[in-house]
Amino acid sequence: MFESAELGHKIDKETYKSEEPALREALLEAQMDTLRLAKYPVVILIGGVDGAGRGETVNLLNEWMDPRHVQVHGMGEPTDEELQRPPMWRFWRVLPPKGKTGVFLGSWYTEPILQKVFSEIDDAAMVESLDRITRFEKMLTDEGALVLKFWFHLSKEKQKKRLSDLEKDPKTRWRVTERDWEHFKMYEKFRAVSEMTIRHTSSAEAPWIIVEGADPRYRSLTVGKILLEALKKRLEQGEAKPAAIHAPPLLPSIDNLHILKTLDLTQKLDKKTYEAELEKYQGKLNLLSRDPDFKKISVIVMFEGNDAAGKGGGIRRVTSALEARVYNIIPIAAPTDEERAQPYLWRFWRHLPRRGQLTIFDRSWYGRVLVERIEGYCSEADWMRAYGEINDFEEQMAEHGVVVVKFWLSISNEEQLRRFKEREDTPFKRFKITEEDWRNREKWGDYERAVCDMVERTSTDIAPWTLVEANDKLFARIKILKTLCNRVEAALDKVKGKEKGKKK
Amino acid sequence: MFESAELGHKIDKETYKSEEPALREALLEAQMDTLRLAKYPVVILIGGVDGAGRGETVNLLNEWMDPRHVQVHGMGEPTDEELQRPPMWRFWRVLPPKGKTGVFLGSWYTEPILQKVFSEIDDAAMVESLDRITRFEKMLTDEGALVLKFWFHLSKEKQKKRLSDLEKDPKTRWRVTERDWEHFKMYEKFRAVSEMTIRHTSSAEAPWIIVEGADPRYRSLTVGKILLEALKKRLEQGEAKPAAIHAPPLLPSIDNLHILKTLDLTQKLDKKTYEAELEKYQGKLNLLSRDPDFKKISVIVMFEGNDAAGKGGGIRRVTSALEARVYNIIPIAAPTDEERAQPYLWRFWRHLPRRGQLTIFDRSWYGRVLVERIEGYCSEADWMRAYGEINDFEEQMAEHGVVVVKFWLSISNEEQLRRFKEREDTPFKRFKITEEDWRNREKWGDYERAVCDMVERTSTDIAPWTLVEANDKLFARIKILKTLCNRVEAALDKVKGKEKGKKK
Repeated sequence: MFESAELGHKIDKETYKSEEPALREALLEAQMDTLRLAKYPVVILIGGVDGAGRGETVNLLNEWMDPRHVQVHGMGEPTDEELQRPPMWRFWRVLPPKGKTGVFLGSWYTEPILQKVFSEIDDAAMVESLDRITRFEKMLTDEGALVLKFWFHLSKEKQKKRLSDLEKDPKTRWRVTERDWEHFKMYEKFRAVSEMTIRHTSSAEAPWIIVEGADPRYRSLTVGKILLEALKKRLEQGEAKPAAIHAPPLLPSIDNLHILKTLDLTQKLDKKTYEAELEKYQGKLNLLSRDPDFKKISVIVMFEGNDAAGKGGGIRRVTSALEARVYNIIPIAAPTDEERAQPYLWRFWRHLPRRGQLTIFDRSWYGRVLVERIEGYCSEADWMRAYGEINDFEEQMAEHGVVVVKFWLSISNEEQLRRFKEREDTPFKRFKITEEDWRNREKWGDYERAVCDMVERTSTDIAPWTLVEANDKLFARIKILKTLCNRVEAALDKVKGKEKGKKK
Repeated sequence: MFESAELGHKIDKETYKSEEPALREALLEAQMDTLRLAKYPVVILIGGVDGAGRGETVNLLNEWMDPRHVQVHGMGEPTDEELQRPPMWRFWRVLPPKGKTGVFLGSWYTEPILQKVFSEIDDAAMVESLDRITRFEKMLTDEGALVLKFWFHLSKEKQKKRLSDLEKDPKTRWRVTERDWEHFKMYEKFRAVSEMTIRHTSSAEAPWIIVEGADPRYRSLTVGKILLEALKKRLEQGEAKPAAIHAPPLLPSIDNLHILKTLDLTQKLDKKTYEAELEKYQGKLNLLSRDPDFKKISVIVMFEGNDAAGKGGGIRRVTSALEARVYNIIPIAAPTDEERAQPYLWRFWRHLPRRGQLTIFDRSWYGRVLVERIEGYCSEADWMRAYGEINDFEEQMAEHGVVVVKFWLSISNEEQLRRFKEREDTPFKRFKITEEDWRNREKWGDYERAVCDMVERTSTDIAPWTLVEANDKLFARIKILKTLCNRVEAALDKVKGKEKGKKK
């Protein structure tokens, strides 16, 4: 894999001098066109061997391009705010918006590669990490991002020479750290792990480009030319067209039986039972939130449901059990322009709670496969890939100890009609009902199918859907509280290392 | 000051029961109207004595109002990301956007009060802190925010009883911490410092409202009614009208002599000297940025100047001296909608660098007193108050060890004309010149006056303006690099505790 990058590629001074100015001008122009178009971000990863010129290349890119629209991320040690969220959070928060360029010197590859080299993880875990990276990058490119991954290589001999040379010159001595030599001793190990990494993560959309790093002129010109070509090609394509879908259709409902039909919507609670249960589960939730171990987990509670199914009331019964400083509610409205300039899930990632916090999403990332699917706000390709992206997202949360609780509040068509009319007749509630609600009602069947597809594809062991029979508000609220208590309790038990058998 | 809050105010159960529902409904309605109007944020501060019901009140507000549009901030220990910025950064980052409500349990008062009680600061320092707070709150209300500050008070006797009662009940025991009792022992001290605080920071726009905290019904009803009245009154006013300006006019230029005229724009560097100096100062800047103590400071370099004065070129000569991961460039464009929903300075606060970083602003917060003043994008009241707000902003940076370097690049009217024409004639540069540039040129005199006012009012010892004679680009670039080197060097010297006499 690295053979071609050990041939001793070289560019002489004259060639470089004759080619550089035009390349530079063309790069700047392509960058400005990308900025003006503002339809996709450019993500550049710079990986490779120590001393192979990664830092120099980044500095050079900043000289060639307009540095005002390039963000360079060294990605050193994570901050404590970052450590409190899933590992990818720190990359999501600095993704470049559409039109801009983000250069990552340290990237999502750094951790797994170091872990593997220092034998902290085995092959299987490494493959799992790389697989996750591949899916993340697939998401980026599907969202339109231009992703360029450069790998700077040096043969062992060349690396040694380069480090020694740098060290000899008092001006560059600072560049060589003890860590560099330590890593050098493990050259073979690094090489093997790097090869594995490159092999597993070179996709059609985001292939690794291996560049011999020994000769600065060769290295620079190569990177510049590849970048220019990529920018131009992407500009020619303009706004990414939705990819054609070759996937088989979702399971058709030929017998008209589906999961929502299995719900017994007649379930009820009388007022007295309700009040007793409410006190019981609100008290329990309150206690759980004050458990010292609660500071070790975080909780996401997500509410989706039919219009007028009682999401607001359900949320209130949860929040009134909690100290105000423990929770935060994110009502999902139209995205802001900063959010529109990012991949779809960005506006949810940014709200992930730190440990000890509970965040309630009033509507959520499932909008993609519900309203956006039905109203055609996104292409079929977009919502079809959303299922997998959402599962990845939730898996990352779960692995980080975030309890993900998802509620679908289900009411019958007739009950919705009754509530709509009631809202219209109550002056105080009139603002809650709009023309749009009536229009949505006409698409009842579409929503039903979308919900069934959603549950089928995203109800997982780590983040299961709880379908809540909500024709009776009292019944629904108790089911919500009970479910939430159980999930939080189970998570705390897990933290405490108790037997899992205990949980209900 | 606390006398009226020690009278033993009480509301009986019946009165409360009869008044609460209407209050609650009216509050919700007022909140929704505020949200729909979306013209100003509501900032609620909850301060006061331990055990006086601060937490309960916040929980209650969240029950009464729609919690989806209320953000509660406990403001515990600052995170490491917060510690790397000036102390107010953590409050700026969570200010509620227009239409929403932010409730602060811990606030900008917490630190100074605790410091004073524990004698870490003297009276003078306390007054200084409080003065800064007053100015901050003035800025908030000038920006349209509705600011409500509640102080919950208990007499010493009542506080003791309340803590004991809470402790006796197993259900509420968790609420009383050792710290509460520790603080109780210092009741008198707290009382004195609180009084001083309230006295110094009760302004017409943001007065403290002292509420007796002993009786929950009295406390709740009082807060609810005050909040409701404030919301309604503010709604009646609608969008805040710019306050009339009673200030005397700025110094008129009756002899036509001003600071820009004192610049000798004929200053030049020949190419050879330039190249030698460039290497010298870029090298120096590079070394400075690699000084181990550089990690203890941060640097802000701000570029303002006439159109076509060479800001871009100046920035490049700075960045090409630095490792890409050390700096970040913020080009100031039109604000995003998230930025528009916040006080003017918010969009600059959010970009303050962490330690060890250098951030370059390509145009800056001075837009308020330059283009916005001249084009009438904001009212006279807005830009007149901006000078003071900006000085406060920069003072906070300076006190936190941020080196604030401000450049005004000045060219002559004739030189600008020459450069505009050159840009029009060069295909590659044509995109850099627009109709707007020509229009701005017609306002040369207005800009000149605005620049003079700006320099006069915002060039301070801690953040001085450097006027750069920029008719000769080479001269300008060297002056920029040299100034920057000197400022950074001085800051590093200060960190190292060296004699200040050494610096040039």
